[in-house]
Amino acid sequence: MFSRRLLSLIINTQHISRELHVSKSLLTAVIINGKAIAEEMRRELKSSVDAWVACDKRQPKLIAILVGDDQASKTYVGNKVRAAAAIGILSETIFFGNDISQTELIEKIKCLNNDDSVDGIIVQLPLPIGIEEKEICCAVAPSKDVDGFHIENMGKLTLDRIGIAPATALGVKELILRSKIDTIGKNAVIVGRSKHVGLPIALLLHADGKGETGALDMTTTICHRFTPHEQMKNFTKSADVIVMAAGVPGLLTKDMVKPGACVIDVGINRIKDNTGGSRLVGDVDFESVKKVAGYITPVPGGVGPMTVTMLMKNTFLASKRNQGER
Amino acid sequence: MFSRRLLSLIINTQHISRELHVSKSLLTAVIINGKAIAEEMRRELKSSVDAWVACDKRQPKLIAILVGDDQASKTYVGNKVRAAAAIGILSETIFFGNDISQTELIEKIKCLNNDDSVDGIIVQLPLPIGIEEKEICCAVAPSKDVDGFHIENMGKLTLDRIGIAPATALGVKELILRSKIDTIGKNAVIVGRSKHVGLPIALLLHADGKGETGALDMTTTICHRFTPHEQMKNFTKSADVIVMAAGVPGLLTKDMVKPGACVIDVGINRIKDNTGGSRLVGDVDFESVKKVAGYITPVPGGVGPMTVTMLMKNTFLASKRNQGER
Repeated sequence: MFSRRLLSLIINTQHISRELHVSKSLLTAVIINGKAIAEEMRRELKSSVDAWVACDKRQPKLIAILVGDDQASKTYVGNKVRAAAAIGILSETIFFGNDISQTELIEKIKCLNNDDSVDGIIVQLPLPIGIEEKEICCAVAPSKDVDGFHIENMGKLTLDRIGIAPATALGVKELILRSKIDTIGKNAVIVGRSKHVGLPIALLLHADGKGETGALDMTTTICHRFTPHEQMKNFTKSADVIVMAAGVPGLLTKDMVKPGACVIDVGINRIKDNTGGSRLVGDVDFESVKKVAGYITPVPGGVGPMTVTMLMKNTFLASKRNQGER
Repeated sequence: MFSRRLLSLIINTQHISRELHVSKSLLTAVIINGKAIAEEMRRELKSSVDAWVACDKRQPKLIAILVGDDQASKTYVGNKVRAAAAIGILSETIFFGNDISQTELIEKIKCLNNDDSVDGIIVQLPLPIGIEEKEICCAVAPSKDVDGFHIENMGKLTLDRIGIAPATALGVKELILRSKIDTIGKNAVIVGRSKHVGLPIALLLHADGKGETGALDMTTTICHRFTPHEQMKNFTKSADVIVMAAGVPGLLTKDMVKPGACVIDVGINRIKDNTGGSRLVGDVDFESVKKVAGYITPVPGGVGPMTVTMLMKNTFLASKRNQGER
């Protein structure tokens, strides 16, 4: 395992020599620097968007819909808007009060569906009580559904056909690929079966690498709330890739990880710290696990920035398709 | 384990006292008699269809499309037509030669989509070279896609919403349920990741039992062609439910099964026998595995008849929805 890690470090270091995306100690895991990888991808994306616009094409445009005044939602939307601006994607945020009805919201979405200048529409979740998320997600036209939550896009992902896949799942795949982890026929465990995160990740982990979604060909185990802890440990302990998406702080501990495994932490949990304030942590007990794992993503700075970046990539791809490019 | 099996046998025997659906020896596995369970379900279904028609509703109607002269396909379609007749579902088989073009076939399907007297349309696979199965599967209107292969139905299954799920996956779930196997938080392995069989089964095994598809809440591992045999054995050996859908005769052997496990064999493979003829076998080495497993389906007479039955159930449900019942 160590020789593979060493080789991988060399490869990583060659490929990304300008920025230090990985830490170099062999005593602890290679830290997969999602923030740096995301920034690199955003630069690549900006070049592509610039080249696209230079060919007299329309600049991609993303609309974010924010309902209510949830502070975390505002932060997330803010991150997306800033990322769009940096990449050269036009964006606009439409705010609605908590009192908007489901029907009104759907009407607004339909207008945006029919607006040819709009390429991507995202509705920040969660939505206020009384508005059904699944109805809203399916109100967005599949061709503009850059979150990839629509039934049609989920069906395409399941059938391994090109559509729009959820950004977090794409981000996780990208981190695994860019870290040059061996995947074909290796064991993956995804902890969490949510429809927008855990399950799409499982789909991209297990499916055929030669298929349209370019999946990872891993033997894939889906654990969830009903998986007894001892069983989960049996699975994670024999996994080459562990993806945590349970929303439970510190769920994955050192004793549950095979030496050298790749650990991707999708969890974002706000917990109280000793000073009476709060901080963000993932589902992984980072400090202990990094002593055993071969690769690990931090929280924050791991999957989060990748999700935003893949959302931008989805928007650009949607824009190109909506402008007639296949 | 034995006490649970004994209890289960008692329950099964009480519930299905008239037909002998299960064998009774405790020295070998309970044989899950798919044929008998399918026949029981067909009788239940016939009563429901009769009651539906008695309320002045239209009799459900299924159209089977058969392209070319593949002998196995003819047999499968024949089984479906006979099952339909026995249940009181009208059916019609439309034959096309190998020379039909994809465009012509899609045109024909569109006509059937627009025919209000038709509730279900199935296109027997495989199709001749030159016709893309995925295009044909998505030409059928989702509301009449009783095979459940359309992107929209697959998306609904993935999102755990009511649509039409593939019949084989529904059949496997039904066999597990009717055998009263404990599933919540237990380990399942599905060997095979095909889009029409293995993956839909994984979706119904792992998802939330409280969801619209009433899934089984199992910790679920998907193995496939790239899973090394030793790894597959590790997974099957700790599984409470093993579903084989690989299309490899005798792939699952006795040494790979935990005593008392439930083994569902979806494989249908024609192999040469000693007499120079041929016979159907599954993916399970039945004679050896039945000595270890707690429950096992035979081939033929296990999953096969259930698939046909669930297809009929899908047709009846589609007919009711198409006639305005929710």
